[in-house]
Amino acid sequence: MGAVTPADRAPKQDRSRATRQRLLEAAVCCLAEHGWAGSTVSAVAERAGVSRGAAQHHFPTREDLFTAAVEYVAEQRSQALRELPVQGRAAVVHALVDLYTGPFFRAALQLWVAASNEPQLHARVTELEARVGRETHRIAVELLAADEQRPGVRETVQGLLDMARGLGLANLLTDDTARRERVVGEWALIIERTLE
Amino acid sequence: MGAVTPADRAPKQDRSRATRQRLLEAAVCCLAEHGWAGSTVSAVAERAGVSRGAAQHHFPTREDLFTAAVEYVAEQRSQALRELPVQGRAAVVHALVDLYTGPFFRAALQLWVAASNEPQLHARVTELEARVGRETHRIAVELLAADEQRPGVRETVQGLLDMARGLGLANLLTDDTARRERVVGEWALIIERTLE
Repeated sequence: MGAVTPADRAPKQDRSRATRQRLLEAAVCCLAEHGWAGSTVSAVAERAGVSRGAAQHHFPTREDLFTAAVEYVAEQRSQALRELPVQGRAAVVHALVDLYTGPFFRAALQLWVAASNEPQLHARVTELEARVGRETHRIAVELLAADEQRPGVRETVQGLLDMARGLGLANLLTDDTARRERVVGEWALIIERTLE
Repeated sequence: MGAVTPADRAPKQDRSRATRQRLLEAAVCCLAEHGWAGSTVSAVAERAGVSRGAAQHHFPTREDLFTAAVEYVAEQRSQALRELPVQGRAAVVHALVDLYTGPFFRAALQLWVAASNEPQLHARVTELEARVGRETHRIAVELLAADEQRPGVRETVQGLLDMARGLGLANLLTDDTARRERVVGEWALIIERTLE
């Protein structure tokens, strides 16, 4: 065998990145479906079709894996949100609420709630929540073309994101789509009037 | 020993009711602090200073105990809310949000999230959530003197309760009081303008 050349290394890095991504996606699904108590590195490795050793190479601890997974999906969602074609404030309100009603929110919620009882998760998830929260707020302000120099505008946008989070929670046990559509339709009008 | 007279029976019923109440209160604290995974009938019985046998006499299963506990506190909170002196809509908005930031909301959240992964809890908690949600909505409409005949008013009140739930979630890992006060201050004004 000859020396490892940069050309050999590149596909290896690609494979490693692909494995990491499969693990992160499997971790989010696992958390959303089974909660923190049912989410282990082994279960995720099996779901991703990766050996337990390889999973532990990427993520030494259970906490590493699941916080990285929630962060990964949060970044993907932020990216998707940033690329939204701007179609007016009402459409932005709907898109923001949609962030909180899929499997990602379910996974994040499981992690948040577990962190409230598990000291080894608490600091990491608190820091992650703050980071994701700031980023979502920043994107919301931009998409809504909200002028935060005006008194009350910052709090209006924050309250909207709190409402979106509450709507996500209301969708946890039952399909709340029909009610949510009516609520969001009305609140989109209120937000439009308030930010005018 | 003579026959059991009604006079003997009354204190026995009182004791039984007091035991039941101690168990329910201990169950809420246990759920709020340790989550569903850390909440067992034994742990609650010990906390309440009641024998495991007596606890099981009142609540045959773990599901019975914890759903009854969340329902009990929900009823207490509804009662307290109904007895609020009416001081205008802004004060009502603050009082509604307060419902979602204490140990009761923490306990309910743990139960809701556990129910999303535990089939034996799902149907009971879904039914409980619907009942508590309808009651809270009814009280909110009354306290806000909201005229649900007017288009959009029902959805405005629902969205406010969704926001309150989201604010509760934001208070789970850190003390969010300062930010929440600013958000609620602003949204109380928006609600006042919208319901005028």
